[in-house]
This record gives sequence, structure tokens and C-alpha cells, in this order.
Amino acid sequence: MHYELYYWSGIQGRGEFVRLALEDAGADYTDVVREQGDAVMEPFLSGQQDGARPFAPPFLKAGRLVLAQVSAILHYLGPTLELVPEAESRRLQALQLQLTIADLVAEVHDTHHPIASSLYYQDQQAEAQLRAADLRAQRLPKFLGYFEQVLAQADGRHALRQHSYVDLSLFQLMSGLQYMFPRRMAALAPELPLLHGLQERVAQRPRIAAYLASERRLPFNTNGIFRHYPELDAA
Amino acid sequence: MHYELYYWSGIQGRGEFVRLALEDAGADYTDVVREQGDAVMEPFLSGQQDGARPFAPPFLKAGRLVLAQVSAILHYLGPTLELVPEAESRRLQALQLQLTIADLVAEVHDTHHPIASSLYYQDQQAEAQLRAADLRAQRLPKFLGYFEQVLAQADGRHALRQHSYVDLSLFQLMSGLQYMFPRRMAALAPELPLLHGLQERVAQRPRIAAYLASERRLPFNTNGIFRHYPELDAA
Repeated sequence: MHYELYYWSGIQGRGEFVRLALEDAGADYTDVVREQGDAVMEPFLSGQQDGARPFAPPFLKAGRLVLAQVSAILHYLGPTLELVPEAESRRLQALQLQLTIADLVAEVHDTHHPIASSLYYQDQQAEAQLRAADLRAQRLPKFLGYFEQVLAQADGRHALRQHSYVDLSLFQLMSGLQYMFPRRMAALAPELPLLHGLQERVAQRPRIAAYLASERRLPFNTNGIFRHYPELDAA
Repeated sequence: MHYELYYWSGIQGRGEFVRLALEDAGADYTDVVREQGDAVMEPFLSGQQDGARPFAPPFLKAGRLVLAQVSAILHYLGPTLELVPEAESRRLQALQLQLTIADLVAEVHDTHHPIASSLYYQDQQAEAQLRAADLRAQRLPKFLGYFEQVLAQADGRHALRQHSYVDLSLFQLMSGLQYMFPRRMAALAPELPLLHGLQERVAQRPRIAAYLASERRLPFNTNGIFRHYPELDAA
């Protein structure tokens, strides 16, 4: 199967969670927007294409299937790419964990845009600093502590006792948070040894290492979801 | 199968999306927390129970399976409760739509809590009014316009050309938004005829009508996700 990934060019964003799965599996895929420009998404977003209409990127085209929402895409790709356990109950567990990662990603986005996505960060910076203080103090320890415990209750090395797309997403989550909140994540590090071990092992997987060293891996920047604004960080 | 639903007592909240599916299907279920109190969730949330550990309620227990996250629960229940089309591609489409509903629900929550879930609404009311203005002007028309188009591109009566849990969730979404933003939703009504028609038909389904008339259906209130604060509403 040849896959077409559609996502905003220029940022890692939510598309990166799908990209990591495709790269790790060595899947045959085209990053369509990077080759053809943002306008190529328009017929899908305006409902002129067959299949389920996406509300927003990323979306994946696989034959006649068009599917949006990161967690749904990974749930679909998981078995084919051998990135999820086979048992249905474990597939559901993977979906649950991915959805919880997605919840934190949404909170991270709203940390730099607490009032409106349609406004610039600079126009809501004061509110962002208030929200960031809460994220650093309450939400990050709660979410990351939860994932640390999930690893501890599995085999200490994987979220699901074997490699899966959830591990790839946890790698991306940790990497993004370290870019956005270097001081806070350094302070939390002693409490998250299993997440750090997982992150290091994922980075060393041959296909992931090759991807991270390639031009296909865009650097984090202040247009994406994880944004480094020093005034939002503190130990 | 006997199902056990676990969710905060006293509010509809996210649990209501699961409850509506169980009620519509006439499923055999226990609303455990309403019978036994909030403390009954603690062993699950602290990881003392087998199975996937929930980050937060709602979660469902079905035999040995414990599953959290509304969209994952509905994806699991869909086939058994005959609340989703059988084809895998259509099950994925349902999941995509449910996840998009969940995205709006999260934005609605953050409208009255834009800075921190850990603070009272009154302590972030000024920011909430700014965020509510953006939700009313930008986000509600965008999301609801999308769902209206999804209905139009299906059969005009269902999101998936047949009754599904997505329709039940759209009913709940419309009902909650009408409680929270009566003036704004009245102003938007002429642009959303298909969503209103769907909402009326769902309310008239015999089991849903019986449920809505029962004491099991809690009224909306200002502790839940959809909260009516008059200062956040405007036409």
C-alpha cells in the first residue's frame, strides 16, 4: 500500500505523530503537501473529494480511504505497520493511550494560545504566562507521571510490553516538551527515568535515527505546537 | 455483556456521550459511581486494578476489559450495540467524527477555564469572556458548519447514512451548546437545519425519550462541561 500524508508544510505539528509511524515502519509514503504545497489539501477540506471529509490536517489517503485525526490514523495503520499488538483489547489500550497523549498535546497548544487560535501569541502573552505556570506546576507532572506509571506497570521499556506507535508518540511528546520547556523538563527528569529511557531507545532505532538525521525531520520552531518561548518556561 | 460505567456523579460531562449509547441500545449497565460514590473509581485511577489504567473518567468495565477515553469506548461499543456501520472504513469514519466532536468539547471546557482547570471560573472570568467571544465568532460556526456539511454529504439525516453513536453525540453536543450559549445558538440555527433535525429525531427515539424523561438524565448545570454563564453568551 502506498500512503499519502497531508499536513501543513513547515512544521512538525500533529502530522509528526503519523510521520514517525510511517518512517519507523519503512512504509511507502508521500508527504504530499511538502511536494505540492498547501493548496493540495483544499479539495479534501472543502468536501470535493470522496470519503470522510477532514475537519483539519493531518489526514491520510490510502487507496480510497481518506482518514483524519491522528489517533484514528494510527489506530488504522497500527496492524498493517506492525506497530500495535494484535489482540483487540491491546489495540484499544493503545488507542486509549494515544488519545491521552493527544489531550496533553491540545493543552500544550492552548498554553501559547489560551484565548484564540486566530490571534497571535504576542496578543495573548500575558494569559499564556498564567496558563503556562499551571501547565508546568499541575498538568505536566500529572500527565507525565501517568505515562511513567504506565511504563512501570508494563515492562518498564514500552507502553504496551512491545514496541508500538504509542512509544513513538511518547518519544515525540518528550522531545517537543524538552524543546518548549527545557528548564521545567530538566527539573522533572529525575522523576521520569522510564520515559527518558524510552525516548533514547526510540531515537536509536535505525529507521528513526536515519529519519531524525535527514532533511525530512524539520526542526522544532515557533510556528508548531511545541513552541519555545523562554518566558513560558521555568524550573 | 454487563457493562459498568464509571464517571463523576452529579454532572453529565463526558460520561454522557457513553451513557447515551448504552441507553439508546438498551444495554445492561450499571452507573457505578452514582450507586457507590466517587471513591469507587480510586483503585482504577491509582493503578491497583488490572487492565489499562485510566488517566481520568469516564471509563468502562466490560468483563476483564477496562477502557478509558470516550472515543475509544464508543469505538469499542459500536459494533456490539449496533451503533456503527459494519464496514471497517465506516467504523474509522465514525471514530474520526467522534474525535472531532471531542475536540470541540475540549474547546468548550477551556472556554470557561482558559487558564487552569485547577482555578475557579470566577478567578479566570475575564479571560473566559475573551475566549468565549472567539468561540462564538470563529470556532462554533466552523465546527458546527462542518458537521452540518457532513450530514448534507451523507443522507441529510445521519452522519453515516444510518443511525450511529455519532448521531447520539451530535445530539448531546447541540443540547449542551444550546444550554451554554442560548443566544448564540439561536442566531446560528438558520444555518444548521440538518443538525436541528437530527437533534429532534434523536430526542424522539423511544429509549432516548424515556431516558431524557427519567431521573437518570441529570440536568445541565454549572459544574459540568457545558456551563451556562450569561456573560459568556451573545447573539
